Amino acid sequence: METDDHDDGGVLVPPSNFSMVEDGIYRSGFPQPENFSYLTTLNLRSIIYLCPEPYPEENLRYLEANNIKLFQFGIEGKTDPMPKDTVLDALKVLVDVRNHPILIHCKRGKHRTGCLVGCLRKVQSWCLSSVLEEYQKNAGVKWRQRDLKFIETFDIVSLRQCLLSIMYRYHGYGFKRKRLVFEEENVQKPQAAKV
Amino acid sequence: METDDHDDGGVLVPPSNFSMVEDGIYRSGFPQPENFSYLTTLNLRSIIYLCPEPYPEENLRYLEANNIKLFQFGIEGKTDPMPKDTVLDALKVLVDVRNHPILIHCKRGKHRTGCLVGCLRKVQSWCLSSVLEEYQKNAGVKWRQRDLKFIETFDIVSLRQCLLSIMYRYHGYGFKRKRLVFEEENVQKPQAAKV
Repeated sequence: METDDHDDGGVLVPPSNFSMVEDGIYRSGFPQPENFSYLTTLNLRSIIYLCPEPYPEENLRYLEANNIKLFQFGIEGKTDPMPKDTVLDALKVLVDVRNHPILIHCKRGKHRTGCLVGCLRKVQSWCLSSVLEEYQKNAGVKWRQRDLKFIETFDIVSLRQCLLSIMYRYHGYGFKRKRLVFEEENVQKPQAAKV
Repeated sequence: METDDHDDGGVLVPPSNFSMVEDGIYRSGFPQPENFSYLTTLNLRSIIYLCPEPYPEENLRYLEANNIKLFQFGIEGKTDPMPKDTVLDALKVLVDVRNHPILIHCKRGKHRTGCLVGCLRKVQSWCLSSVLEEYQKNAGVKWRQRDLKFIETFDIVSLRQCLLSIMYRYHGYGFKRKRLVFEEENVQKPQAAKV
């Protein structure tokens, strides 16, 4: 663990706009050196960073010293619309529990982070009004109508297919066959065998 | 588990103003029947309810069917100042991991819940500005100056003493002696033995 140059006499300083999303998932604004002591208590394994700007040297040193992996997805702050494919890639990293505990952050933890968390909530089957309430709570007066629209129209089917393929890889053919039988039942009635 | 009369076709509806505080600790506004399916996914063991009004029959039935214990601390919504002893009692229930996973709620999840969570953050050694930022994020435009003052002046020493006594009970004399030696070192220099 890195020697801490930012000792505040035992007081912990979480990053701005910090909150817990789920077991092993956190969100915040950009972590500053005075937040490192607090971050250490989270035992992070990874960080999802959603801005195009290079990660600061001091933060990179902290990550290296604490063996934290950085996943950077460069999304412009003023982008309209948000890049769906990039958000989908970030979502794949986010739902992979091998990367947990994980912190998502952009600059303020409001728009880019809010959109990614909103998409995660859709994967978790949250109703849309609850997803938007959470987005707005974290964005405050800075909330953007176009972000709400992005979240609402974001298609999670391809992510569900990706999750399914991960399950196949881990659980093998037995799981796959069971799943396929299940899908056949729902999608298409099996033909009666000709005798 | 209770038969769910509020099926929304697989869509989950968290209670209003819901968020995760820590591992095994959640906060929200008053849970309605349409939120029960979501609450079930949290595997709650207890609920801290901070209003004086009786708990609704439908909610009591849900708790009973799911073996969830209710801790009620009747704090008036307009109380000024907040009752310190009652908040301390609620805090003792909250920090006891035997009650986790636990949901804290009042009516809107803003003032009474916000004060209790704020006091918890002080126990966790969060710096005051981060505690207040979290309080304000959850209270929105309804935030109250007197709540911030309550959190700032809330004395957590008696809770720390209570935690210490729990540790003594669980870890026995060895722990106690080590602790007392540690305290002696800090509080009072031991006298050199006379020879």
